[in-house]
Amino acid sequence: MIVGIIGGRECSANTRNIAESVGEEIGKRKHILVCGGMGGIMEAACRGAKRFNGLTIGILPGKTKEDANPYIDIPIVTAMSHARNAIIVRTADIVIAIGGKYGTLSEIGLARAIDKTVIGINTWDIPGIKKVRTVKEIIQYIK
Amino acid sequence: MIVGIIGGRECSANTRNIAESVGEEIGKRKHILVCGGMGGIMEAACRGAKRFNGLTIGILPGKTKEDANPYIDIPIVTAMSHARNAIIVRTADIVIAIGGKYGTLSEIGLARAIDKTVIGINTWDIPGIKKVRTVKEIIQYIK
Amino acid sequence: MIVGIIGGRECSANTRNIAESVGEEIGKRKHILVCGGMGGIMEAACRGAKRFNGLTIGILPGKTKEDANPYIDIPIVTAMSHARNAIIVRTADIVIAIGGKYGTLSEIGLARAIDKTVIGINTWDIPGIKKVRTVKEIIQYIK
Amino acid sequence: MIVGIIGGRECSANTRNIAESVGEEIGKRKHILVCGGMGGIMEAACRGAKRFNGLTIGILPGKTKEDANPYIDIPIVTAMSHARNAIIVRTADIVIAIGGKYGTLSEIGLARAIDKTVIGINTWDIPGIKKVRTVKEIIQYIK
Repeated sequence: MIVGIIGGRECSANTRNIAESVGEEIGKRKHILVCGGMGGIMEAACRGAKRFNGLTIGILPGKTKEDANPYIDIPIVTAMSHARNAIIVRTADIVIAIGGKYGTLSEIGLARAIDKTVIGINTWDIPGIKKVRTVKEIIQYIK
Repeated sequence: MIVGIIGGRECSANTRNIAESVGEEIGKRKHILVCGGMGGIMEAACRGAKRFNGLTIGILPGKTKEDANPYIDIPIVTAMSHARNAIIVRTADIVIAIGGKYGTLSEIGLARAIDKTVIGINTWDIPGIKKVRTVKEIIQYIK
Repeated sequence: MIVGIIGGRECSANTRNIAESVGEEIGKRKHILVCGGMGGIMEAACRGAKRFNGLTIGILPGKTKEDANPYIDIPIVTAMSHARNAIIVRTADIVIAIGGKYGTLSEIGLARAIDKTVIGINTWDIPGIKKVRTVKEIIQYIK
Repeated sequence: MIVGIIGGRECSANTRNIAESVGEEIGKRKHILVCGGMGGIMEAACRGAKRFNGLTIGILPGKTKEDANPYIDIPIVTAMSHARNAIIVRTADIVIAIGGKYGTLSEIGLARAIDKTVIGINTWDIPGIKKVRTVKEIIQYIK
């Protein structure tokens, strides 16, 4: 199972902790984590996943793999800026939104436009996404 | 000035009328209209623009220009599915959202992520976009 | 008819002159010229087209329309680097390669992969493209 | 090290064997293999890599991961048709071209345009790529 994590480069300590916990749960289950490969929520989730030896993929917006956060195993270098958001949600079997600003909003829209399930925690309140309040509730979706 | 129109392929008669009126205002001012090139809101806006000889550009998601609605002057064929949404909002100087579902939501997110002004009418209620109720209010943004 | 012009940012005086002449012929016939929007061959062809009031479209690789050469009427801002090459050849009804280096080679490959006719002058010697030596020979393809 | 394999969906028995051998050498060295994820040369190389437990990534052109050949571990779903060729060569640290038609030609061009080293065997004769005749010669580049 490939689990997509979407969320901003800037984030609160609280959402960062959530992201790290979600990453840990992904890693424990030997799922693959796919994200935008940058800092903030993405980095926290990858750090959590790597703690349990999960595999992490970063779909990078820039031109070099040097942009990837240090917990990315496989940097996919798109040089496509925000257009790479569409690739993240297509690649994921399920998408988890944690915090986030407009980039995350675009990913929620792109994911729902192709009928991907989106779980949301501390994020945009958009109809059609499954809002949860705890990491525990997320686990049932990524068994 | 290049004005971006975003909105769904399916739409109510009311939002279609709004789109057509907005298109007319764009055409009258000799602005260029850029959109996703498909039906619904996009087609209505283009029809309005062509009534006043405006120039219309469709950034198409599919592989051939035959997908374009009949009011598109210049079909840009991306073969990139939803990733082309990022091109629409980058190309537009200002973005007008009319109605719309998840594809439109993604475009609002992409536009705001790169700080483009987004005017919204009968559309998603997203902080940071300028909500209006009438075509008249839109005109002031595209003088 | 949308005519694609592909060729490098750096070019000899000779190929620049050819590009300008080809652009003039496109402009005279009221065809639309699509290219990568940058300097060198692209700029020369657009300059030629504008001399006869042709319409010019630049599918730009960068993030802003300010990158476009001064003869571009419609800057399409992709922020996709070389991936935009695929859009240029999909959008064109016919592709004319003038000089060029590896970027142009990629466009020849992309165009032929989707069975677009490619005319080549002073460019890569690739089987499957129609090699010509004079602008006059090109004219027959863009009547 | 991420090794890119480029080559056609259709291929001769000979180039298929070469691709499989190259894949084996990539797998033995625990390098990551990235390719377009489809059949022919791509499938043969992945099959070789998996024989030695290598990790394989397919940057898919279509809309679903079901398109991937059976030896792809990680399907990256771009829905971008040939534009995904740019992602393959950006992601690879080195690119190996085996056989191939116009799609492969475009990838050679894209790779060389961003100064990636391209090794070629039984493929297009393009200046600037390192032509070899045996798999043994390729090994020195992927130590």
